[in-house]
Amino acid sequence: MYITGIGRTKFGVFDTSLPELIYEAMYKALNDSPIGITDVDAVIFANFLAGPNQGQLHLNSLIASLLPRTNLPIIRVEAACASGGIAVNQAFSMPKKFENILIVGAEKLNDHTTKTIARNLAMAGDALRDQKEGLIFPAQYAILADQYLRKYDASHDDLMLVSLKNHRNATLNPLAHFYHKDVDLEAINSSPMVCSPLNLFDCCPISDGAAAIVVSMIKKGDRDVKIIGSTVKTDAISLSQRTDLTTFKAAILAAKDAYKTANVGPKDIDIAEVHDCFTIAEIIAMEDLGFCNKGEGVKLIRDDETSLSGRLPINTDGGLIGDGHPVGASGIAQICEIVEQLRGGAGQRQVPDAKIGLAHNIGGAGGTAVVHILEGSK
Amino acid sequence: MYITGIGRTKFGVFDTSLPELIYEAMYKALNDSPIGITDVDAVIFANFLAGPNQGQLHLNSLIASLLPRTNLPIIRVEAACASGGIAVNQAFSMPKKFENILIVGAEKLNDHTTKTIARNLAMAGDALRDQKEGLIFPAQYAILADQYLRKYDASHDDLMLVSLKNHRNATLNPLAHFYHKDVDLEAINSSPMVCSPLNLFDCCPISDGAAAIVVSMIKKGDRDVKIIGSTVKTDAISLSQRTDLTTFKAAILAAKDAYKTANVGPKDIDIAEVHDCFTIAEIIAMEDLGFCNKGEGVKLIRDDETSLSGRLPINTDGGLIGDGHPVGASGIAQICEIVEQLRGGAGQRQVPDAKIGLAHNIGGAGGTAVVHILEGSK
Repeated sequence: MYITGIGRTKFGVFDTSLPELIYEAMYKALNDSPIGITDVDAVIFANFLAGPNQGQLHLNSLIASLLPRTNLPIIRVEAACASGGIAVNQAFSMPKKFENILIVGAEKLNDHTTKTIARNLAMAGDALRDQKEGLIFPAQYAILADQYLRKYDASHDDLMLVSLKNHRNATLNPLAHFYHKDVDLEAINSSPMVCSPLNLFDCCPISDGAAAIVVSMIKKGDRDVKIIGSTVKTDAISLSQRTDLTTFKAAILAAKDAYKTANVGPKDIDIAEVHDCFTIAEIIAMEDLGFCNKGEGVKLIRDDETSLSGRLPINTDGGLIGDGHPVGASGIAQICEIVEQLRGGAGQRQVPDAKIGLAHNIGGAGGTAVVHILEGSK
Repeated sequence: MYITGIGRTKFGVFDTSLPELIYEAMYKALNDSPIGITDVDAVIFANFLAGPNQGQLHLNSLIASLLPRTNLPIIRVEAACASGGIAVNQAFSMPKKFENILIVGAEKLNDHTTKTIARNLAMAGDALRDQKEGLIFPAQYAILADQYLRKYDASHDDLMLVSLKNHRNATLNPLAHFYHKDVDLEAINSSPMVCSPLNLFDCCPISDGAAAIVVSMIKKGDRDVKIIGSTVKTDAISLSQRTDLTTFKAAILAAKDAYKTANVGPKDIDIAEVHDCFTIAEIIAMEDLGFCNKGEGVKLIRDDETSLSGRLPINTDGGLIGDGHPVGASGIAQICEIVEQLRGGAGQRQVPDAKIGLAHNIGGAGGTAVVHILEGSK
């Protein structure tokens, strides 16, 4: 399956409505592809919170309204923050009779107070147990960070380096939520505590935005990027049901299967987008994906190996921390960035000679993991 | 693709939690199938309102909690009242590497006041237009009914016959919401007006429940039922964007495509489950599916052709009106009933010699339509 077009909105805090965001991303992706809307055979849509936030479900039919008289098969999928990755995986799973599929993800979070947003985002966690214990997202990841820092030779100083790198990358990405935000270690270090040991700069922002790609079963041009691996795995939703809180088993299993399908290994990956909803998540991701041994993720950061000029650049677009995290869009925006890089069109943040890229998208605190591996045409 | 196991809960108003309902249906379906949980390769889950109703999303990970240490690929789909049909369609679309797929749909509606439930159910309609105009579901279908009764030779007396038939069928289905409810034309006629011309007995109830099926790429036994057609089509979400309110274009297109895939026509269908959220919807469905000409659906009802002893029995389990409508489960429960009938295991409501069955599942007021065609082994 080939990615023949990509498009996304800027991420940030906007007055734009959800349908407008969706429309803009779809329009841009189709414009970027040789495939026109009349050649599209199906649409997959990813969104997490439009029900609680906008009072709007039945989102596949909402998209039908934006594509009048096409009456296409349109499927909406939801897997919390992994909704976007799941959507791309579903397209990868669709039967060959759908030659061209439009995949779009969108989220409009900034319609409410921070308290309401935090409560709604917590719907990604177990309602009967974790939510009742007050485990909103920063609290869940703070537990993971605390466990990690106790178990391995690591400190909050290492986590700060993840935030610094991703914020710096975002200043090279005009569509990023924090494009205009200059950040240094002093600012990161002195930012308010959110949930110990995580402070404000350990957390991704609450963003609105949309991203879309067009995929085709047949290669359409020289700049097309091939999806060579795509796997979804799950794990129990409640942290109370996990045995190790310093790793995501679903991510390890998804990566293993995706590498196998793609017939590549961690050493073959030139660039990666990993799910850094919190700084600790990027460290865990590097280990789960096999980029280093368990407990050694912090070394990659300290040695600058994952910066734009490093051996394995990670989150070149700024990641969720710098680029933003409009939930349903994030997994698809990761793919957009990998495609930009493999095409050689990433401008100031271009990594030279990238051939194979990996995208790692997580739902909740590891309850869902989606791994995609992409190969450029060059 | 073959259906090798079916299972469902009773439909009604229960204290049971959503995870408990899901578990019961999955357990029963696996118990009914030669496939055990360790042979399942993927799970598809259908649900509409767990976000707004239970504060629980990321439902694929919730299911992972119920299936410990399987770490299966689990996908949640949502398409309002067509969520269940969409889930079965997605399984039909999955790649062959998934040999056995467990499909489950569930809904827990009765956690709230009727007002809250009505507001949440309205999320299936356009938030920016129709919801603001007060077009909750009964109001939407009342407009359709009004248009239909003005345009064709039909009256509310005809709609009452749909309700009577479906309630009678439900009294033969021990799992139905209204199993114990004797209904006659007098009761139907004197029931309170909900939204003219629809009164209480024109409407399906608000039910809790779950339903599941196990599907396999390879035939496992003599009683397996084959899915020979499965199509999804969509239409604009807002009634203001439709040109004809007496028909669902998405259903006509889905039926046409499903018939083509299955290589059968409307005349080959022995039994059908159609989406009778309101009585008028069953009339429209019969016409959209090609069982009769436009405007002649009422004749089939008047001539008793769709009762258990008629030429083409429709909604033998009681339909949404008699069996109940736990939204995410309904499309899958329809399939369960067709399978029971084609296996010859439907007990008191068994239709003799049924070989080919059709299931028609609608989201919102026709914004999504899913049509499945099933063939028995006998």
